[in-house]
Amino acid sequence: MHYKSGPRIKEITITPIAVVDPPLLNAAGLHAPYALRTIMEVITDDNISGISEIPGNKDIDAALEEAKALLIGRDVFQLNEIRHVLVERFGTDTSAQRGETPWDQRKLVHIFSAVEVACMDIIGKVTGRPIVDLLGGKMRDRVPFSAYLFYKYEGAGGELAFDIDPNATGWAAARQASALNPSEIVAQAQAMCKEFGFQSIKLKGGVFEPRQEVDAMFALYEAFGPNVPLRVDPNALWTVETAIKYGKEMEPILEYLEDPTRGQENMAKVRKALKTPLATNMCTTSFEDIPNSVAIGSEDIILSDHHFWGGLRASMTLSGICETFGRGLSMHSNSHLGISLAAMVHLGAALPKMTYALDTHYPWQSDEIIVGGRFKFEDGAVLVPQGPGLGVELDREALAKLHQNYLACGLTKRDDEPEMQKKVPGWKFKSVRW
Amino acid sequence: MHYKSGPRIKEITITPIAVVDPPLLNAAGLHAPYALRTIMEVITDDNISGISEIPGNKDIDAALEEAKALLIGRDVFQLNEIRHVLVERFGTDTSAQRGETPWDQRKLVHIFSAVEVACMDIIGKVTGRPIVDLLGGKMRDRVPFSAYLFYKYEGAGGELAFDIDPNATGWAAARQASALNPSEIVAQAQAMCKEFGFQSIKLKGGVFEPRQEVDAMFALYEAFGPNVPLRVDPNALWTVETAIKYGKEMEPILEYLEDPTRGQENMAKVRKALKTPLATNMCTTSFEDIPNSVAIGSEDIILSDHHFWGGLRASMTLSGICETFGRGLSMHSNSHLGISLAAMVHLGAALPKMTYALDTHYPWQSDEIIVGGRFKFEDGAVLVPQGPGLGVELDREALAKLHQNYLACGLTKRDDEPEMQKKVPGWKFKSVRW
Repeated sequence: MHYKSGPRIKEITITPIAVVDPPLLNAAGLHAPYALRTIMEVITDDNISGISEIPGNKDIDAALEEAKALLIGRDVFQLNEIRHVLVERFGTDTSAQRGETPWDQRKLVHIFSAVEVACMDIIGKVTGRPIVDLLGGKMRDRVPFSAYLFYKYEGAGGELAFDIDPNATGWAAARQASALNPSEIVAQAQAMCKEFGFQSIKLKGGVFEPRQEVDAMFALYEAFGPNVPLRVDPNALWTVETAIKYGKEMEPILEYLEDPTRGQENMAKVRKALKTPLATNMCTTSFEDIPNSVAIGSEDIILSDHHFWGGLRASMTLSGICETFGRGLSMHSNSHLGISLAAMVHLGAALPKMTYALDTHYPWQSDEIIVGGRFKFEDGAVLVPQGPGLGVELDREALAKLHQNYLACGLTKRDDEPEMQKKVPGWKFKSVRW
Repeated sequence: MHYKSGPRIKEITITPIAVVDPPLLNAAGLHAPYALRTIMEVITDDNISGISEIPGNKDIDAALEEAKALLIGRDVFQLNEIRHVLVERFGTDTSAQRGETPWDQRKLVHIFSAVEVACMDIIGKVTGRPIVDLLGGKMRDRVPFSAYLFYKYEGAGGELAFDIDPNATGWAAARQASALNPSEIVAQAQAMCKEFGFQSIKLKGGVFEPRQEVDAMFALYEAFGPNVPLRVDPNALWTVETAIKYGKEMEPILEYLEDPTRGQENMAKVRKALKTPLATNMCTTSFEDIPNSVAIGSEDIILSDHHFWGGLRASMTLSGICETFGRGLSMHSNSHLGISLAAMVHLGAALPKMTYALDTHYPWQSDEIIVGGRFKFEDGAVLVPQGPGLGVELDREALAKLHQNYLACGLTKRDDEPEMQKKVPGWKFKSVRW
């Protein structure tokens, strides 16, 4: 009646890749022509492969390389122990803290997220179950996402970042079009919703002065009517006063207001003044942040991200915390490909409650590294992959090509400020702008 | 690449049993000659059996019978959905709330705990993994328990509740001996620790006036020295003043003080006055209780119980909440057999942190319903069962015999007050006594 130990990790491959990314604007500047991702592949002693994808960053890649020695030989089921070992090694690393950017750069959470998803992919394969079933099973077959609008310059990214293809049509045309004012934002939303069927809409703000962005939200409301939930994310660039002023103006039209201002204390002040729920992926971004969030009431909705919260099971715990404290839970995104999307969909399908459609940058990417190509959206939702584990397999040819992109593009981490300076000389990131 | 759906529930059997239980004293009165447990067996369409054990209660058994119709035909992996369905049906049931007794009588948590453990036993069997691996894997091979001392009348329980076997030796003799004063408590502790190897000691108090119980704790300290952690549980019977007075006196000798007083507000007052950590399984007993616990700081350690917190995954979430808010986590127990013990051990082995040895009544029971008989303790710890799932199998002959006990004994729920009245006529439960 003794069970044998689980499959053990024999080999780990870390492959940085660069993915064509359009010139999208945000509070930190401008997206580079390529977004970086890191693909991890874990191979067991019986040659089962598990994969995962995290944001790309040279320092995190180096930490992953270093982590290999701690991981080789371990049973993929022993994720509690693996986490413990990684916490011991990387938990006190202070060289890459959260920082002020809209994205997260902490090592431990990224490393453990990469390892956990790859191991759960393997666990799913050896048990013949999709990852969602390892998280307690499906609450829904389709996971709804929101349209994610960006102010942007003309161009589709990549080698010819700001060039356009004059023959493009539909979403491919809209994806390369400029969007620098309310009417162009509405056009982008219409094209994106037509292509993907999204039924709620978010605008990444923090780019122009608030009046313009608020006008864009009213233009969207005008164009889509009251049945399409709207959200705007000023990326923490507004003062408390600005957030309250424009927040009040948008109360009649917003589903939620995301990170209108910086820091839990300021968020709590804005929250007291507004009826609109506040969402965050910048003021409460880790389990360590939660006690103060609860104490002062800094937000209504946490936008989780399994890459930043330390994996899928940790995200389920976060869901339990949100339920316990009466907070909503939805999901944050960065530029990503189908491995991350698959993990997000498995997690999204397992969440006991899903009140809000999730964020995804996926429509903005055109590359893919999974066999069969890019995920399809139906009515803005993604069907939970049907295979065991993540239900997606690595397209090794595409991986090699995107790794070549990485080597060729010269980028080693995300930094939107120098990219912005190419278009607006002297531009500087400010943590609070208006 | 499509996966087939998981094994589906074909049949569910609910068997109430009665287990010989000695005349143990506690704040609610006296243990009856039999402790009631309910055994659930779930059979899948491919005839795999999963089992679980919860506290016995006629109303909960009836609810389990009623729940069958909601469960038959469901995939055992779909526990999120099963929980949702049970919440819909039993979540608003107010007929059996927590109440003032030291044990819990809420239907939903018991029902879901029973269903979840049985389904995870099946999941473990079909995937060839122990339940601990379904919770993220083992953090330890052995799960440490604490000696659980009781004031008691002479006798070993069962048909001849207050009789003794003059030929008994060792722990069997000590188990039937009376323990009504400090020196008898020390003798009980010595016999129990000798038999099971426990390395920490808890006294169930709330029986005699505080002076006697505090004297018992000092007598234990005298006998076992400073290296054996000591705990006492007055079962919420003390006033705030009494708790502070005796709590201060015991500060030098206690590892923690459990539920010295009733209610979160009173616990918070005692906690402010004492250096000794406070533990609870009576003031913070559900996820709904946690926000106020956090707001007012009512305890340092939550004594979880998968039967009362809605299963094993929920207990892992509770562990995450405790870690997030800087609280310790240990485990509460009631009179139980080996199926509950196996589930406790799998959960205990998966907990990321275990600072405190867990509670168990197991030494007080003599019956067993698992093949191979009773669990062995080594140095006070139980080795995680080695088989897939729970790693224990039902002894059907023993089950039938203990079900006969149930039918014969006439008990239908735990009620320690009438039992106490048999020894102390007119005795009444008081929610606060000293």
